[in-house]
Amino acid sequence: MADYPRPLARLVREFSRLPGVGPRSAERLAFHLLSRSKAKATSLAAALDEAIAALDTCPDCQGLSLGGVCEICSDPARDPQLVCVVEEAREVFTLEQSKVFSGRYHVLGGVISPLEGIGPDELAIDSLMTRIESGAVRELILATDLDPEGEATAAYLLQRCVSSPVIVSRLAMGLPSGAQIGYSDPTTLAGAFTSRRLVRSPAR
Amino acid sequence: MADYPRPLARLVREFSRLPGVGPRSAERLAFHLLSRSKAKATSLAAALDEAIAALDTCPDCQGLSLGGVCEICSDPARDPQLVCVVEEAREVFTLEQSKVFSGRYHVLGGVISPLEGIGPDELAIDSLMTRIESGAVRELILATDLDPEGEATAAYLLQRCVSSPVIVSRLAMGLPSGAQIGYSDPTTLAGAFTSRRLVRSPAR
Repeated sequence: MADYPRPLARLVREFSRLPGVGPRSAERLAFHLLSRSKAKATSLAAALDEAIAALDTCPDCQGLSLGGVCEICSDPARDPQLVCVVEEAREVFTLEQSKVFSGRYHVLGGVISPLEGIGPDELAIDSLMTRIESGAVRELILATDLDPEGEATAAYLLQRCVSSPVIVSRLAMGLPSGAQIGYSDPTTLAGAFTSRRLVRSPAR
Repeated sequence: MADYPRPLARLVREFSRLPGVGPRSAERLAFHLLSRSKAKATSLAAALDEAIAALDTCPDCQGLSLGGVCEICSDPARDPQLVCVVEEAREVFTLEQSKVFSGRYHVLGGVISPLEGIGPDELAIDSLMTRIESGAVRELILATDLDPEGEATAAYLLQRCVSSPVIVSRLAMGLPSGAQIGYSDPTTLAGAFTSRRLVRSPAR
């Protein structure tokens, strides 16, 4: 687009760098915030400022914290020997909603993706290995996505743990809650067969 | 989503208020900006702050300005008697790219939309009428969208001008550049027929 005033062009550029925001939506967002009153822009700016000031990266799990070690890592009720590895900080909140896990987390900050130039060194893998090598981890639960990048990252982590006495597990592949067999994909069904659980073992 | 730290929840809420941003994308944006380093969040906050400080509403046309009367309204080379009415400030920049218009603009700040509770009082129509009634406007070019709301707003403005000696025109409906007749919709084709221009008038 031509000839936007410089501060407006800068804001459009910043918005278009966000994931899922193309150049047209970036323009739409900038004009939405600045047209007529500037109250909307001010409100977003204040929320950003507060988040920048308040939120931090937890030095233990690399997840989001409110400054210093996060609530989960500093909770004595949570098992420090059980570490669930996730790709992104957001996934910690998603998994917490399931209320099934009482250990701690480790946030990789992405996945290995040669196409995007992301190798192990770009991820928080060294800090994970340090946690494991300190002997403080009994079981590592690999909760990366079940897509090619997530599987490759899980395989890489498994291989890195080969000489450590740590148990390594992977979240089960199976049918999602509410799934209909007739509409499920073959890979999911294969996983559900392989991980099937015994519901009755008849007396002999 | 459950239990985000309060500053994060606030930022997610602010993002989800933006046009085209649903609750899931709002979460994605917030985590994208805050995960790992906060450089991305800081960069967006700085751009917002600069835009808030630098940009203003032009008191004449209600479009965006860099403080006070905008560049277009203060340009003596542009015909003040020719006023093009648009819905949104952004459209001024789109129309300027066509380089065909040398008058001034008036930004309504929306369209009449009873479904969304937007009537003439919510739009910059009084200030437009003041411009017209001061006798400074020779021709009013209605450049609202060619959708039902835009057409209704154009019809309303036409009716408001009924007792003023101002010429009122509307942007032509016709085929867009590069259009293929076979793929054009009937309303556009009807408009293109009605507004057809004579390209040869044979000598009798």
